[in-house]
Amino acid sequence: MWRELLPVGRYDATGGYRRHAWNAADGECRAWFREQALKRGLTYEVDRNGNQWAWYGDPSAGDAVVTGSHLDSVPDGGAYDGPLGVVSAFAAFDALRDRGTLQGEGTLRDRGAAGGRRPLAIVNFGDEEGARFGVACVGSRLTAGVLDPGHARSLRDEDGVLLGDAMERAGHDPAAIGRDDERLARIGAYVELHVEQGRNLGDAPVGVASAIWPHGRWRFDFHGEANHAGTTRLEDRRDPMLAYAATVLNAREQARLAGALATFGKISVEPNGTNAIASRVTAWLDSRAADSDTLDTLVKEIIHESGAEVTRESYTPVVEFDRPLRDRLAGRLGGVPVLPTGAGHDAGILASAIPTAMLFVRNPTGVSHSPAEHAEEADCLAGVVALASVLEDLL
Amino acid sequence: MWRELLPVGRYDATGGYRRHAWNAADGECRAWFREQALKRGLTYEVDRNGNQWAWYGDPSAGDAVVTGSHLDSVPDGGAYDGPLGVVSAFAAFDALRDRGTLQGEGTLRDRGAAGGRRPLAIVNFGDEEGARFGVACVGSRLTAGVLDPGHARSLRDEDGVLLGDAMERAGHDPAAIGRDDERLARIGAYVELHVEQGRNLGDAPVGVASAIWPHGRWRFDFHGEANHAGTTRLEDRRDPMLAYAATVLNAREQARLAGALATFGKISVEPNGTNAIASRVTAWLDSRAADSDTLDTLVKEIIHESGAEVTRESYTPVVEFDRPLRDRLAGRLGGVPVLPTGAGHDAGILASAIPTAMLFVRNPTGVSHSPAEHAEEADCLAGVVALASVLEDLL
Repeated sequence: MWRELLPVGRYDATGGYRRHAWNAADGECRAWFREQALKRGLTYEVDRNGNQWAWYGDPSAGDAVVTGSHLDSVPDGGAYDGPLGVVSAFAAFDALRDRGTLQGEGTLRDRGAAGGRRPLAIVNFGDEEGARFGVACVGSRLTAGVLDPGHARSLRDEDGVLLGDAMERAGHDPAAIGRDDERLARIGAYVELHVEQGRNLGDAPVGVASAIWPHGRWRFDFHGEANHAGTTRLEDRRDPMLAYAATVLNAREQARLAGALATFGKISVEPNGTNAIASRVTAWLDSRAADSDTLDTLVKEIIHESGAEVTRESYTPVVEFDRPLRDRLAGRLGGVPVLPTGAGHDAGILASAIPTAMLFVRNPTGVSHSPAEHAEEADCLAGVVALASVLEDLL
Repeated sequence: MWRELLPVGRYDATGGYRRHAWNAADGECRAWFREQALKRGLTYEVDRNGNQWAWYGDPSAGDAVVTGSHLDSVPDGGAYDGPLGVVSAFAAFDALRDRGTLQGEGTLRDRGAAGGRRPLAIVNFGDEEGARFGVACVGSRLTAGVLDPGHARSLRDEDGVLLGDAMERAGHDPAAIGRDDERLARIGAYVELHVEQGRNLGDAPVGVASAIWPHGRWRFDFHGEANHAGTTRLEDRRDPMLAYAATVLNAREQARLAGALATFGKISVEPNGTNAIASRVTAWLDSRAADSDTLDTLVKEIIHESGAEVTRESYTPVVEFDRPLRDRLAGRLGGVPVLPTGAGHDAGILASAIPTAMLFVRNPTGVSHSPAEHAEEADCLAGVVALASVLEDLL
C-alpha cells in the first residue's frame, strides 16, 4: 500500500513531493484512495468540499468514529506528512478486520451490553497544506464553516488559476462548497494519526497530542528607494534589505528569549536585480508559542523593532484537543507521552465542532516539510497498532 | 524628440521602463532611432552585433568621431539612463548643423590647414543593461571581442528563451555576432554622454569622467536544511536565512569602513514557503571600490565572515579613460569637474580598443535605475551644448 503511493507526485530533481490541491499528482493520490476503499468493500463518497470518505457501516447511523489525514503535500514535501495517517487508517482497518472486530459488509461485532455499533470512516481531507492557494486546511475549514465559500473560490494560485476553476476542472462543483453541519453531526470522534514534526517523542514511538500552539502569519513590507548599486553613496541610500536583515536576526533572538518560534522563510524583492538597491522587500513571519500572550508579545516586539508596514494574514488561537477523548487514548495506550505541537492540522480545525484527537509517530530527525522527512518502519507499524487499538476501544 | 520616446516601454503600475534587449519596447526604441537617422539624411545601418549606427560622412574614411549611448533599461528603470545620451547626440548634431559646422549631405566644413574631415556617427549600443540575459554591455562587448559569441548566444532569459533566438525573432542573424575589428578601426574617438548616477557633480551641470571603479558580482549560496517552521526547535535548525541576514549587515559595515560600495539586491530562496525553514538562500553581492586592492580585500572579508559557498560571476578591472581625450574635453569645457563613477558603460568596454571619454549630466537626487531618476531640463540642455562643443572641437 505504502509502496504504491511513494512515486506519485515525487519530483525527481529534489526527491520531494509536489502533490498540490487539484493538480495531477493530487488526482492520482485521490484515485488511489478510491481504489483502497472499493477493494475493501467500503462505501466511497466525496463530500461537497472535496474530501474523500470510505465508510464501514451506515454513515447515517451517527456517532461515527473517523480516522484519516490528508494526501497533499507542501512544495517538495516529504512522504509521511499526511499520507502516513491515511495509509495507517487503512492498515488499522485491515488489522481490525483480521482480528474479527470488524466483520463482513459493515457489520460490527456485537460487544455485548457495554458495546456500541458505531460506524467507522476513513477520510482524506482535501488541500490541507494550502501549498497551491495559500490557505491551509481548506477541506476541513469549509466543512466546519470557518472559511467563507466565496472567499475560497476566489483564491488564486501562482498562475492566476482560481481555486473554484481548479475544482471544476477536477470534476467537482465549486458552487456546492461550504459549511456541512449534516456531515459533522454524524461524527462522534475524529482521530488523526500524523508523523511528529519535531524531535519531541524521545524514546517513545507513539504519543498523543495535547494541544496545537497558537500561530499566525504576518506580512512585513519594508519600503525603500530603488537606486543604482554602483553609484549611490551609502549615506544616500534607503535600502530596505538592511532593515529586513536586522529584523530576521531580531526575530530569532526574541523568539529564543520567549521560548517560542519565529521564522522568515519566504521573501519577495523588487526589483530583485543584482545591481539595483531594492525598492521594497516583502517577507513573511511565521510565529508560534505555547500561549497567546507569549505569541502576541513576541510578535509585537518584532514588529516594533522592524520599522516595516505589517499585515496579519492569518491567526489561529490555541487548540486544546478534547480532554476526555485524549485521556481515553492515552489510557488505552498506557502511559505514552502527551505533547503539544506547533503545526496546524485538520484535527485542529475540526476541534471547534466535534471531539478530535491526534496520535503522533516518532520523527527521529525532526525533519518535516522536506524530502528528508523520515519515520522508521518499526515506529510506523507501532503507529498502526496504536491506531487499531484506539479504534477498537472507540467502536 | 524626448517626448516621443517617453511613453515607449513604460510600465504603468510602477512608472518605470522595461525596455529589455530584443523585447517589443526595445524594438519600438530602435524604430525611433532609425527614423531619427533617416529624417536627418544620415546613413543608417545595424552592425553584426545588433548596434544601430547613423553616419554623417563616409564611414570608411576612418578616424570617425562617434557619440551615443543605449536605449534599453533595467527592470523599472528611469527615463534618462541611456536615452539621454542618444537624444543628446541627435540634438548636438542638429545644433552643429544649425551653426554650419556640418553642411549638406555629409560634407564637413573645411576648417583650413588645422582642420580635418572626420566622419561623425551616432550609435545605439544594444543590450547595455543586461536586464534580460544577465550580461551587461552585450553589444559593445561582442564588438570589442571580450564576450564569446557562442556564450552570448547560449544566454537565457527568465522564460528560458535563448539570446540567439530572441535576436533571430527580432530579425537579426545570431550567427554573425562577434568581434568587429573592422568597425573599431574606423573609429578615432567615442564620447558617451550619460546622466550622472550619484550626487557627485555638486554645483556643476556637466562633468567629465576620469575612470570607472573596478566592480564585480559574487553569488553567495547559503546552505541549510528545509524544515517545518512550526515544529522545529530553534536549536535543531539549520536556517540559512540567519547567515544571509548577518552577511547583509556585515557587508554594509565593511563597505562603510573601506569607503566602498557593497549591495545585496537580488535573492532567491528555496522552497520560499511561509511555514518552511529555507533549505537554501542564494543572494548576489554587487561590490565596487576606487581601486582593486580595496575591492579585493573588502569582498574577501565579506566572504570569510559569511560561511557561504561563493562564486565570482563577473569582475571588471578599473577602467581609466583615454587621458589625452579626457583632458581635451575638460579643457574645451573649461574647468568642469573630472570624476570617477561606479557604474559600467559601453564606453568603459570600448576603452580597451579605442580612445573613449564620457560626459556626465548632473543628477540632483542621485537616484538611478529607478522610475524616480531625474535630471533638470536646463542641465540636459547644458549637456547638449557641451556635447556639441566637444564634437565641434574633435571634428
